[in-house]
Amino acid sequence: MAERCAIGLDVGGTKISAGLVDSQGGVLQTLRVPTPVDGGPATIFQAMRALIDRLLTAAGGRELVGIGLGMPGLIDRARGLSVQSPNTGWRNVPVLAQFADYGLPLEMENDTRCHTVGELHFGAGRGISDFVLLTLGTGIGSGVVLNGQLFQGGSGRPGEIGHVTVEPDGPLCGCGKRGCLEAVAGGRAVGRRAREMGIAADTRELFARAAAGESPAAALVDRVAWELGLGISYMANLFNPRRVIIGGGMAEAGDQLFEPMRRYALELTMPGIRETYEIVPAALHEEAGVVGAAALLPGLTAHQRKGA
Amino acid sequence: MAERCAIGLDVGGTKISAGLVDSQGGVLQTLRVPTPVDGGPATIFQAMRALIDRLLTAAGGRELVGIGLGMPGLIDRARGLSVQSPNTGWRNVPVLAQFADYGLPLEMENDTRCHTVGELHFGAGRGISDFVLLTLGTGIGSGVVLNGQLFQGGSGRPGEIGHVTVEPDGPLCGCGKRGCLEAVAGGRAVGRRAREMGIAADTRELFARAAAGESPAAALVDRVAWELGLGISYMANLFNPRRVIIGGGMAEAGDQLFEPMRRYALELTMPGIRETYEIVPAALHEEAGVVGAAALLPGLTAHQRKGA
Repeated sequence: MAERCAIGLDVGGTKISAGLVDSQGGVLQTLRVPTPVDGGPATIFQAMRALIDRLLTAAGGRELVGIGLGMPGLIDRARGLSVQSPNTGWRNVPVLAQFADYGLPLEMENDTRCHTVGELHFGAGRGISDFVLLTLGTGIGSGVVLNGQLFQGGSGRPGEIGHVTVEPDGPLCGCGKRGCLEAVAGGRAVGRRAREMGIAADTRELFARAAAGESPAAALVDRVAWELGLGISYMANLFNPRRVIIGGGMAEAGDQLFEPMRRYALELTMPGIRETYEIVPAALHEEAGVVGAAALLPGLTAHQRKGA
Repeated sequence: MAERCAIGLDVGGTKISAGLVDSQGGVLQTLRVPTPVDGGPATIFQAMRALIDRLLTAAGGRELVGIGLGMPGLIDRARGLSVQSPNTGWRNVPVLAQFADYGLPLEMENDTRCHTVGELHFGAGRGISDFVLLTLGTGIGSGVVLNGQLFQGGSGRPGEIGHVTVEPDGPLCGCGKRGCLEAVAGGRAVGRRAREMGIAADTRELFARAAAGESPAAALVDRVAWELGLGISYMANLFNPRRVIIGGGMAEAGDQLFEPMRRYALELTMPGIRETYEIVPAALHEEAGVVGAAALLPGLTAHQRKGA
């Protein structure tokens, strides 16, 4: 019986990662190239095809169950479109149709939701029917799993916790509103606050200085932990998940961030709900995009294999 | 062919309402008695049975498809328990078992969720697969419908918008936290604020004074509309519903509240989502509890009647 695997692509604003992923979520091979953002869709599709071709060869005798694509921005999964992408400037670009000639099942989803599906099948969401993933990167993304399914919302855009207003007169957000959670506690915003306060040049230095006991840095980390805890409490109060999984670059700060963030989140969650969920780090890291994109393929994640 | 109907009971802290509801959501007969809160569960069950008995007689030759019970507080629908009720002080009281001898299908749900199911089948949620109901009463309740189903959450307590923190140093809430939406913008809280500011004795007088052009009253109404709009924006950003339905006593203020609340809600919702939903008044009013409790019965709401 041939080993099953799928190809996962994670198309980011600066790089495209691709990998061959097995049915346990293991990455058999990874490739990475810079995203040719200046050439328009055709150039990016060309780069994606080159990666797929190399992985098809690498797959050898394995059974390939399909190709999964993780794309930034807003996508229309059913129609296979990139509806709007802040990084590439795409608007309603047909993506899936470009790869139809491979004759393989194709799936496509927003990058954070790919990560969510990856955690569901191969990570910290395994066996948890209701959970929320928060990614603390440059911005703040999220994915929601309800009853074991990726939640799609009424118009395909649920879980936008990064854009709830937490500081009505706060800084302008990329989305056009003021004081969104992302605009105060996203990685880029925290870096900017640290620089404006003359505390540190970036979030990494901020956490290092806070860990070294410098009080202005510690105070800012504590404030950010409170703001993130507030966002988590909103997700918990409304979605009533069993787990809140935290991923993204800023989550790598570990206990230094998790300890106060967890404390504040529970404090701000309604009694009766706060006892019913836990806050844990994501299990997938660098490979989250690629593994998540591959995990979109039902053929990779189905527990019973047909005809086996 | 006998007309189908169901008995719905709405057990509140001050009164028990009961009604015979037809398959179009029409109320054929309504009964109302004070809730005998001082006598313990047995006395309340007795009062409920007396109402059911009278409605059984009133049903005459109609086909009775079951009895639905709407109860305050936290209930365990699957086990038929009242887990915790702030009004009656009940803890883990078996409710459904008390009515098994009627030999009819029985259903039970929390009162606000009954109202939600009522709107889904017979009100402003008809034909809308993803919507949220907010009830602005003494407190702030909510119910969430996703994919045409009442959302139950990971531990049966989703959608607690009344208890998200909107003012971290705000007034103490009944739930034990500070500055919950309910503690600043629920009916009881708004009445208290109006009195403390010497503007009005209650919310009704507050809205009347604001309508008459008194500026302190108008300013407080505007502030409350902003706070409620913020809560609505959280629901919209996270659940991505097609409709937000507003019910409860304070919603009876009409356009005076809806116009600013709607404006603020959309302003505070993420662009891209704000275009995808509308904010409308509930269709069910006084009768919401009774109709909603009856609507819990699949036999009443099934579109195709078996054997018909």
